[in-house]
Amino acid sequence: MTIHDWPIGPYPARVRIAVAEKGLQSRIRFETVNLRKGEHRKAEFLARNYSGTLPVLELEDGTCIAECTAITEYLDALDGTPTLTGRTPREKGLIHMMSRRAELELLDAVSVYFHHATPGLGPDVELYQNAEWGLRQRDRALRGMHHFDSVLRRGPFVAGSAFSMADITLIGGLIFAGLVKLPLPEGCEALRDWYAGMQERPSVRDRLALS
Amino acid sequence: MTIHDWPIGPYPARVRIAVAEKGLQSRIRFETVNLRKGEHRKAEFLARNYSGTLPVLELEDGTCIAECTAITEYLDALDGTPTLTGRTPREKGLIHMMSRRAELELLDAVSVYFHHATPGLGPDVELYQNAEWGLRQRDRALRGMHHFDSVLRRGPFVAGSAFSMADITLIGGLIFAGLVKLPLPEGCEALRDWYAGMQERPSVRDRLALS
Ligand SMILES: N[C@@H](CCC(=O)N[C@@H](CS)C(=O)NCC(=O)O)C(=O)O
Ligand SMILES: N[C@@H](CCC(=O)N[C@@H](CS)C(=O)NCC(=O)O)C(=O)O
Repeated sequence: MTIHDWPIGPYPARVRIAVAEKGLQSRIRFETVNLRKGEHRKAEFLARNYSGTLPVLELEDGTCIAECTAITEYLDALDGTPTLTGRTPREKGLIHMMSRRAELELLDAVSVYFHHATPGLGPDVELYQNAEWGLRQRDRALRGMHHFDSVLRRGPFVAGSAFSMADITLIGGLIFAGLVKLPLPEGCEALRDWYAGMQERPSVRDRLALS
Repeated sequence: MTIHDWPIGPYPARVRIAVAEKGLQSRIRFETVNLRKGEHRKAEFLARNYSGTLPVLELEDGTCIAECTAITEYLDALDGTPTLTGRTPREKGLIHMMSRRAELELLDAVSVYFHHATPGLGPDVELYQNAEWGLRQRDRALRGMHHFDSVLRRGPFVAGSAFSMADITLIGGLIFAGLVKLPLPEGCEALRDWYAGMQERPSVRDRLALS
């Protein structure tokens, strides 16, 4: 299988962490798509993913699976024993909810901030920016950090009693926040301690060593 | 179980269709949250869903599951035989990808258009609008319709060879497009025919009878 990504990207990080958690490294080849050169907007890449975003998992038969959540579902189901996306209905529901919330309230919000209210990928790639919207999303992300802090005061993981895709998505959000220099607000000790703990997991440590 | 929703809402439609497809109607009570009165912004509702959006599924023990995708995962797993979210890794990956794409490129885009570039839920609820962003998202939704038209020229369903959550999400997008009077663009015959076919499914027909 091939993963088309940008090694230091925060969304690609989600899938790289999932690959490592599932022990699938030896089955995957990584191909770089250069975001700063706008390669994700070229026809060749858009044929793999209409939305023009990374990462994309390409199977041996040429089938392309885009979207981190979808790729994680695929990888997690390969060995018949899901560890990242839940086993029971309740686990599946809570993990998907919290992962989506970590996107909406943090990762995707930071991404909009980056692309719209900072130079983003540079003037050749960022052809339209809406700074006001970008700044709203930055504020949303900062509120999101407080929310996840309160979640992590109640338990060691983002969803339920084990490490899951929801933790990975939140890690992606904090990686992106770090890249755009949005520090954790005061008072988010539970979030900070959880993130320090996460960095002791080999899957996360190896990914963070890239940036 | 209780579903907190707004009966004619396009996101709630996704879950109502899933409930009907799984034959779970008799196990669910519906409670209305009045969006036009801003009830989804009140503390009581925010305690159920931090993001302040509908629908929310509340289990008997008080656990709340928000986000249509997460609720659909939960309901689909209840009987041990998933029919909406895929069985094999490939099915799961493709269904999640296409459902997310139907959100990003249509349903969520129409929602932003509605809330930002039309009167939306009215001046008491829409306290911040960014019309320029809303209009960009309208254009994104129109391009999305062309994309899904091309997908449906290749096969009868949005993802793979059976009806799934991805079809339901696209139906939600077209319901919302209808509410805001964004007609299907010229040339989208495959999308139009698919939608007409979908309306013959009892789950979809019963939902559409509400509006
Ligand atoms: N919804 C997508 C978002 C992925 C995404 O935004 N990836 C970034 C790379 S870190 C990207 O491709 N950005 C380019 C752009 O948005 O133009 C997912 O979950 O995979
Ligand atoms: N990501 C959410 C979105 C749900 C959503 O936006 N629901 C609408 C009702 S149709 C809503 O609550 N809108 C109120 C608002 O956005 O303020 C999901 O998939 O469930």
